[in-house]
Amino acid sequence: MKRYNTTPISGMQELLPKSQRLFNSLKRTIEQTHERHGFQNIETPTIDRMEILLAKAGGDTEKQIYKVIKTAETADEADQALRFDHTVPLARYVVEHENDLAFPFKVSQIGRNFRGERPQKGRFREFYQCDIDVIGRNNLPIEYDADIITTLSTALSQIISESLEIRLSNRKLLSGVLEEHKITEQSAEIFAIFDHVAKVPLEATRAAIDDLPIPDVAKTLLGQLVVMRGTPSDVLEKLGLLKVSSATFKEGLSELSSVVSFLSDMNAPVEIVIDLGIVRGLDYYTGTVFETFVKNYEQIGSVCSGGRYENLASNFTEHQLPGVGGSIGLSRLFYVLTASGLIDTEGQDATKQPIDLAIIPISPADYAAAYQLMGQLPGLNIDIIFAGKNLGKKLDHASKISNVGVVIGQDEAGAIQNGELDRLEVKYLNTFSDQTKFISLKSYLDKHADA
Amino acid sequence: MKRYNTTPISGMQELLPKSQRLFNSLKRTIEQTHERHGFQNIETPTIDRMEILLAKAGGDTEKQIYKVIKTAETADEADQALRFDHTVPLARYVVEHENDLAFPFKVSQIGRNFRGERPQKGRFREFYQCDIDVIGRNNLPIEYDADIITTLSTALSQIISESLEIRLSNRKLLSGVLEEHKITEQSAEIFAIFDHVAKVPLEATRAAIDDLPIPDVAKTLLGQLVVMRGTPSDVLEKLGLLKVSSATFKEGLSELSSVVSFLSDMNAPVEIVIDLGIVRGLDYYTGTVFETFVKNYEQIGSVCSGGRYENLASNFTEHQLPGVGGSIGLSRLFYVLTASGLIDTEGQDATKQPIDLAIIPISPADYAAAYQLMGQLPGLNIDIIFAGKNLGKKLDHASKISNVGVVIGQDEAGAIQNGELDRLEVKYLNTFSDQTKFISLKSYLDKHADA
Repeated sequence: MKRYNTTPISGMQELLPKSQRLFNSLKRTIEQTHERHGFQNIETPTIDRMEILLAKAGGDTEKQIYKVIKTAETADEADQALRFDHTVPLARYVVEHENDLAFPFKVSQIGRNFRGERPQKGRFREFYQCDIDVIGRNNLPIEYDADIITTLSTALSQIISESLEIRLSNRKLLSGVLEEHKITEQSAEIFAIFDHVAKVPLEATRAAIDDLPIPDVAKTLLGQLVVMRGTPSDVLEKLGLLKVSSATFKEGLSELSSVVSFLSDMNAPVEIVIDLGIVRGLDYYTGTVFETFVKNYEQIGSVCSGGRYENLASNFTEHQLPGVGGSIGLSRLFYVLTASGLIDTEGQDATKQPIDLAIIPISPADYAAAYQLMGQLPGLNIDIIFAGKNLGKKLDHASKISNVGVVIGQDEAGAIQNGELDRLEVKYLNTFSDQTKFISLKSYLDKHADA
Repeated sequence: MKRYNTTPISGMQELLPKSQRLFNSLKRTIEQTHERHGFQNIETPTIDRMEILLAKAGGDTEKQIYKVIKTAETADEADQALRFDHTVPLARYVVEHENDLAFPFKVSQIGRNFRGERPQKGRFREFYQCDIDVIGRNNLPIEYDADIITTLSTALSQIISESLEIRLSNRKLLSGVLEEHKITEQSAEIFAIFDHVAKVPLEATRAAIDDLPIPDVAKTLLGQLVVMRGTPSDVLEKLGLLKVSSATFKEGLSELSSVVSFLSDMNAPVEIVIDLGIVRGLDYYTGTVFETFVKNYEQIGSVCSGGRYENLASNFTEHQLPGVGGSIGLSRLFYVLTASGLIDTEGQDATKQPIDLAIIPISPADYAAAYQLMGQLPGLNIDIIFAGKNLGKKLDHASKISNVGVVIGQDEAGAIQNGELDRLEVKYLNTFSDQTKFISLKSYLDKHADA
């Protein structure tokens, strides 16, 4: 017999049923929260045209893309590939369906994306991302920046047991300073210094600023900004006192201040820190930028990030489609949360077995009663056990998939048919100290309803 | 500006938000029904090793497979591909995780599969399939055949407004006749004649049987079987009267009779027809086989089918893993149900807009109240409208995504802050005859709770 390697391909996340149930519960919580906040779910095809996917991307992304080819084709002919994020297919979708959508278009996407990266712990080649975006036509009120942050942090607060911290900034602040001091030529270099401030010693950041070919007054200002970090009221006050007259800077300050104020109106379940070191890469974002951290667990990195962009689909249309969005990398998040014990188990039933209740009919004469009982227990995932030569074997199987079981024999079947459910008993299948422990079905259901 | 083709690739199903909401509702109903009946959800990677995917397949499947290659590779090196069904990855999964699973393993898979077929109406290259299977180790009670059919038909009965009919057979009946008359060499030909009986005129079937190089007594018997179709009691009686002494035939008859009896115990919401013309292709299935039709809409074809197989993973392990399973082709089903008006709209909210309720704060002073109101209306998908220069524009936007809205001005904000929700009014946004129709929020919520 030929031997096959049955492990999943390296870099793929494949879960056992119990973990899958927990993963699905997290996904469902995020999905429902996004929809509850008015984001409309869409799904784009996994496969798209290469020229669409690569219209904006380049560099690393191009190297990581998975081309797809049918048998008759050769690699050079491949003009289709797997999507590597939700943003590019969204741009295509919005342009294609522009006349059928109402703007601002609040959109939610949850699905698998693909990047042929070198696999690492918690980094997958096929991974779930949960994105929300608001796309405007020509303009988009700043309120939606707060709406995005509120919605994402509401979802995260339901699945993570520890407090969350949003680190918030607005790229127009730094852009305004560069304009004011006519040093926009050093823009990429300066944004990169800010982007790295959390990762290098402060002296390195100071030295990098000092080495820039820019006026001393600009160096001083950048030195102040790059370490500016604190509560919204403190930082907004400090920013207001800076001697910067650039309109872009003022716009950034006003936007940042509005987002903070709206987040308070919206009662976002998150602590806000303004942090000028948050930049989110070198291009794409143009205004609000944010990252989300789990308090006391900063080492796991940002669990959700995003920001405002000037134009979603500049490659595909001349229409101006400004947007704001954010993304939860669910596969990585699930990995780090389970590794760190940070999943909110009360809400997410992390201790649950794959099945809520096993029903064990002793003989075929009890099948109809077993099904009748199932019909009277809505909301539970129930496995009716048919396999096993005797009751012991059946209970043994049941104990592997469920914590509790109900055995249906002649008496119990009669009770079910007479509507006397209070005569039934639930058996705890995994109570090792006391294997025979029973409670009444009613008390069990009351307990289950509380949980 | 370079012009891009922004239509989805041919053969892909891309939906607008309102249709997507309906699609998701169908998917969720199937998913919940499967889990409710004790099937444990798993997800396998979309990408798997070519040798795994092709271990059993061949012919057309191999031609339709999508290879995936990274940029540096050439097509010949491609050793990975997109899964084309759920069965092959399930076989790999069960072998890989055998020691961590409890058998019989009741498993549910819902996801996208890929086949590079020529696109046709209702036939997609990337399509959702919803599979359930029960996998035994060494043996698997016949009860699970009925469990599969009951679960799938319960799911379908919740999304299809018309009655369902299961056409049921057992391949051991025909195999037994072939054994008895020592005509197993004609097996492929004879199964093919049965498989086509519904698609060709009866005379053609009779002629094909007559042309077989087999004894007349076998011809007579096959002629009787190939048109045998009717209620379980009628057909089981007729089969019992046939003079066939083969043990395989008797086993098939006993299994078929058990499945019918268990379907009645399980109260499967479906009319059962035994139809010896149901064969389900030429190999793979070995016992129970079934197809599901919508009554009076037989022309849309089977909406769900499956059966019993002797061994899930004979290519990957020497362990015997018998199984029974069935599959709903959701993308195709959604297409035919919407085209035929067959979706059960009461259960599935087909008339719903993407958003249940729009909340329209008149000014930023009303934002906090708007969010407070949202918090008091759980279970609704709510969009708080920030865009639009004036109330008219805001209502206009709201009317495109929701049927109803609540405008929040100073008075309403006061009412919300005082907990006087009964003072709020809901406005029907799309009542063209009477644009200004209002009802109280309370009556609206009462109506919504009823729906």
